[in-house]
Amino acid sequence: MTFEDFHAIIPAGGVGTRLWPLSRKARPKFLFDVAGSGRTLIQSTFDRLIPLCGAANIYISTGEQHVAPICEQLPQLDSSAIFPEPSPRDSTAAIALAAAVIARRFGEKSVVGSFAADHVIRNKTAFEQSVHQAIVTARAGYVTTIGIAASRPSTAFGYIHEGRSLASEIPDAPSAHLVEAFVEKPDAQTAQAYLETGEYRWNAGMFIMRADVLLKSLEQTKPGIYEAVRSIADAWDKGKDQREDAMNRWWHGIEKIALDYSVAEPVAAQSGVAVIPGGFGWDDVGDFNSVAALLPSSNRQNIKVLGDADSLVYLDSAGDVVAPQSGRTIALLGVDDLIVIDTPDALLIAPRARSQQVKQMVAHLSESGHGDIL
Amino acid sequence: MTFEDFHAIIPAGGVGTRLWPLSRKARPKFLFDVAGSGRTLIQSTFDRLIPLCGAANIYISTGEQHVAPICEQLPQLDSSAIFPEPSPRDSTAAIALAAAVIARRFGEKSVVGSFAADHVIRNKTAFEQSVHQAIVTARAGYVTTIGIAASRPSTAFGYIHEGRSLASEIPDAPSAHLVEAFVEKPDAQTAQAYLETGEYRWNAGMFIMRADVLLKSLEQTKPGIYEAVRSIADAWDKGKDQREDAMNRWWHGIEKIALDYSVAEPVAAQSGVAVIPGGFGWDDVGDFNSVAALLPSSNRQNIKVLGDADSLVYLDSAGDVVAPQSGRTIALLGVDDLIVIDTPDALLIAPRARSQQVKQMVAHLSESGHGDIL
Repeated sequence: MTFEDFHAIIPAGGVGTRLWPLSRKARPKFLFDVAGSGRTLIQSTFDRLIPLCGAANIYISTGEQHVAPICEQLPQLDSSAIFPEPSPRDSTAAIALAAAVIARRFGEKSVVGSFAADHVIRNKTAFEQSVHQAIVTARAGYVTTIGIAASRPSTAFGYIHEGRSLASEIPDAPSAHLVEAFVEKPDAQTAQAYLETGEYRWNAGMFIMRADVLLKSLEQTKPGIYEAVRSIADAWDKGKDQREDAMNRWWHGIEKIALDYSVAEPVAAQSGVAVIPGGFGWDDVGDFNSVAALLPSSNRQNIKVLGDADSLVYLDSAGDVVAPQSGRTIALLGVDDLIVIDTPDALLIAPRARSQQVKQMVAHLSESGHGDIL
Repeated sequence: MTFEDFHAIIPAGGVGTRLWPLSRKARPKFLFDVAGSGRTLIQSTFDRLIPLCGAANIYISTGEQHVAPICEQLPQLDSSAIFPEPSPRDSTAAIALAAAVIARRFGEKSVVGSFAADHVIRNKTAFEQSVHQAIVTARAGYVTTIGIAASRPSTAFGYIHEGRSLASEIPDAPSAHLVEAFVEKPDAQTAQAYLETGEYRWNAGMFIMRADVLLKSLEQTKPGIYEAVRSIADAWDKGKDQREDAMNRWWHGIEKIALDYSVAEPVAAQSGVAVIPGGFGWDDVGDFNSVAALLPSSNRQNIKVLGDADSLVYLDSAGDVVAPQSGRTIALLGVDDLIVIDTPDALLIAPRARSQQVKQMVAHLSESGHGDIL
């Protein structure tokens, strides 16, 4: 059962710096099959939204340079469903522009949802059930997010502090709760304390709301962005020239800000945000340890392979994460828990314990004149 | 000062298995500049023999398939100085055949010396001085070897047990001693005991002797090899057809045995072997730790680089041995004392402590169907 009034927006941005050299500025991680599933991250995201709104109601906001590879990976995507960005302006601009265009095409009461292109979700049925309730909650006027069941005291994610139940108000969304507040990435001790209360969930950046609710909130909190996206949306479907003129006039001046700060936090302060629990196994595939957790175990040494397993030969080695992506043979002798990412033009070697610090390596490469391989 | 009667033979064989994937069956280690000196091992070997006998008196015995790359690296080499082997028959055949041909060309009293193509010698003057004395000792009828000053209780080399001085018998070779015996690679305890006596030196497989002395010894110890090499040598300079006929008839049946066993040991037992001390810094470049010791230190982290240093980027890493040989960028993050050998078709990663076990990895690759990259 799809929801006729529901439109899913996939903001496809972000390089995935901690997955270098697999992901690059020109080939961000959403274009890769980092989970070894046979589908790239953006393909999987698209696939899992089809049962909710149908392929025709899925939209993609992305940098102009990524449009061609995305269309290659998603041949069913219509050009009218693509929002190419000449410069990155963060998620508020991306989602609000798509919402404003959808509002013009299908009506202001349309429900829009944003789902990042580079997240992995294990249990699709549970995901659909959460989004169902989120759509119902959104129709009732709430900015609705999905709060991921926190499986560990992670310091890598922001948290959602859950408030009172909305079940009596919205009977078709029995799991909906009010959001008390959004909180920033905590330190380890705070994260542990959050978990012990049972009131905190991970913020996966999924927001579902009526287009009019989103745009009215924005009109109050960020009138500059509101005016820009409304103006562009007015011109969007009036031919190439008018669209380009509007983009040239408005886009590049738009404030760069995440929807979390422009809309979700201020609306939450006015008790306008709801949360639906998501217990479906979620990961933002932030680093190579995440990748390793997603890959199947196919050997007793628990060596995870992303790519051609026949290219890997190991002896006295265990726990490594290896990406044979260059066609070369990789021979591991006596090395444990190492990350080995082997691409045609760059090779990364690091202990798994350093997987978060790949970001620093990328900064170091940039500073030391190796920007050409980033 | 060169010695008119001295002819140097360079047996260029042996793959250098522990230097895989740098060295390959088709590109043995002597074809590489593993010391980062600007010259390959065989070029350096050739260079250091020129002052002793002149380029025209240097000969190379090698597998047929290596003749072309060797000639490329040594353009001054005349085709008459090359002994191509259609199949490997070990060092006795290689050296004895060259010696028999030299004996026919220049007389039976010619002095021949064998010097492996893949050893590194640091102090050329000291090397020349040792060979000078060895030539003088060889003229006096001794099979003469050069005993390397053992700088550590290595278990990787055979040892030479030094006997009484020959200084009174051969005044022009004041350092010459009789060889008491050759001993096999010892265990660590035995090696330590050897070192403490001060009577043991490393056997580097350098042998200098008159052609007639070598061939007469062989006639007694290995008459089959003697007959074969004499027969081939008789035909060698009589045109292509006669040479090929003789090789086809005799070569492939020759017993595979090292000169150490066929000549040096039996002659030593009859007090016919002398040793000249060699204090010139010697290494057989057996593994990547040897390579690391030869490479210059060019950074505070003591990371040794064999290849293009600009291709290497490191952060929080030290003590690694890295060979960027593929043109790709290598990024090391938080890895210490690792061997990283990066070639266009194969990558090896191992701790330095495992450098001897690269041999096992090569065996494993062979067994697991990766023979094409060996």
